[in-house]
Amino acid sequence: MKKNIPSDTIKRLIYYLRYLEELKEKGKDMISSNEINISLNIPSNQFRKDISYFGKFGKRGVGYNVTNLIEEIKKIIGIDKKIKVILIGVGRLGSALIKYRGFLTLNMEIIGAFDNDPKKIGKEINGIKIMNLNELKNFVKKENVKVCILTVPANNAQQVALIAVESGIKGILNFAPVKLKLPKNIFINNVDMASELGYLIFKLKNL
Amino acid sequence: MKKNIPSDTIKRLIYYLRYLEELKEKGKDMISSNEINISLNIPSNQFRKDISYFGKFGKRGVGYNVTNLIEEIKKIIGIDKKIKVILIGVGRLGSALIKYRGFLTLNMEIIGAFDNDPKKIGKEINGIKIMNLNELKNFVKKENVKVCILTVPANNAQQVALIAVESGIKGILNFAPVKLKLPKNIFINNVDMASELGYLIFKLKNL
Repeated sequence: MKKNIPSDTIKRLIYYLRYLEELKEKGKDMISSNEINISLNIPSNQFRKDISYFGKFGKRGVGYNVTNLIEEIKKIIGIDKKIKVILIGVGRLGSALIKYRGFLTLNMEIIGAFDNDPKKIGKEINGIKIMNLNELKNFVKKENVKVCILTVPANNAQQVALIAVESGIKGILNFAPVKLKLPKNIFINNVDMASELGYLIFKLKNL
Repeated sequence: MKKNIPSDTIKRLIYYLRYLEELKEKGKDMISSNEINISLNIPSNQFRKDISYFGKFGKRGVGYNVTNLIEEIKKIIGIDKKIKVILIGVGRLGSALIKYRGFLTLNMEIIGAFDNDPKKIGKEINGIKIMNLNELKNFVKKENVKVCILTVPANNAQQVALIAVESGIKGILNFAPVKLKLPKNIFINNVDMASELGYLIFKLKNL
């Protein structure tokens, strides 16, 4: 595998995967890179370029075997086996994400949710029990979870993230609008709704 | 203003803005780039580099006037005046975003929400009335809205996006896990929850 793979390449792999799963369900065996580019509305050759970071798949003039490619992409991302995920902060966004079906179809499963609000603790969303934050450490260790979705308010995020890391979490998908200060071996992916909307507004002004 | 400004630079401006607003509330007048880097946990000099794309602000050895810098960043992004936004698709995520306070504090206001579910139409969330999708065109024209948040299911997204564009929408923050096919003068910013989580899992595997 090559180094310095653009983050957008990895994120596009998920798009490819969803599309290939659809094709497989429809009984399609083979697909060309051209068909993928057109169907997914991405620039011509983008798919071939993205996939070339990870080796040689497919045959010139024949295309890609759909089932094989699904398995390969899953292996590349690391979702060939089910990945356990916990979520901390069961507010509006947290609840929406627990109910989101798009994770599970890609082998990423939220298996536990945590909050510090006594009114929420003990309740269930989509069969996921909301636990007390003080149960986090035991749960993460017992279930060997490495990935956490953080949807707590900004002013709690740093403190809660530290607890998660102490419990054994190695990667955080952070929706709180703060830059977390964590040890260097922890990977953080920030998703900031206001930044994304602001970026859109900037682009519109400058197009 | 320089060209080819990295998207991450624009997105970081929102982080700076939020932090500067906090400082202003606390009565702080001046700030150094160093203080900003340390407080926001971003690499040293990143702030100076980011802001340098847009001209010269601040004075060497003195720092930046907080109020001025807030106004400048707002102008750069295009949120010095309130920006009207509509949301289409009042499901779980859509409802969470309507209630999200982080937009309004940055002058981005969701002023209308749309859905095609008769059970939702006519109801209100946070004082925002949910309207029928067939009212979209009139509303967008009357209010002169250019920005839309799209939180409809994947299989409706393309069709609904086209309606939005025909109504006069120029920019779409798209949460549906599909690549939209729209005219080239329309700017789309995709936020895909599964892609972001998948990217995190990939990084953890390869760190």
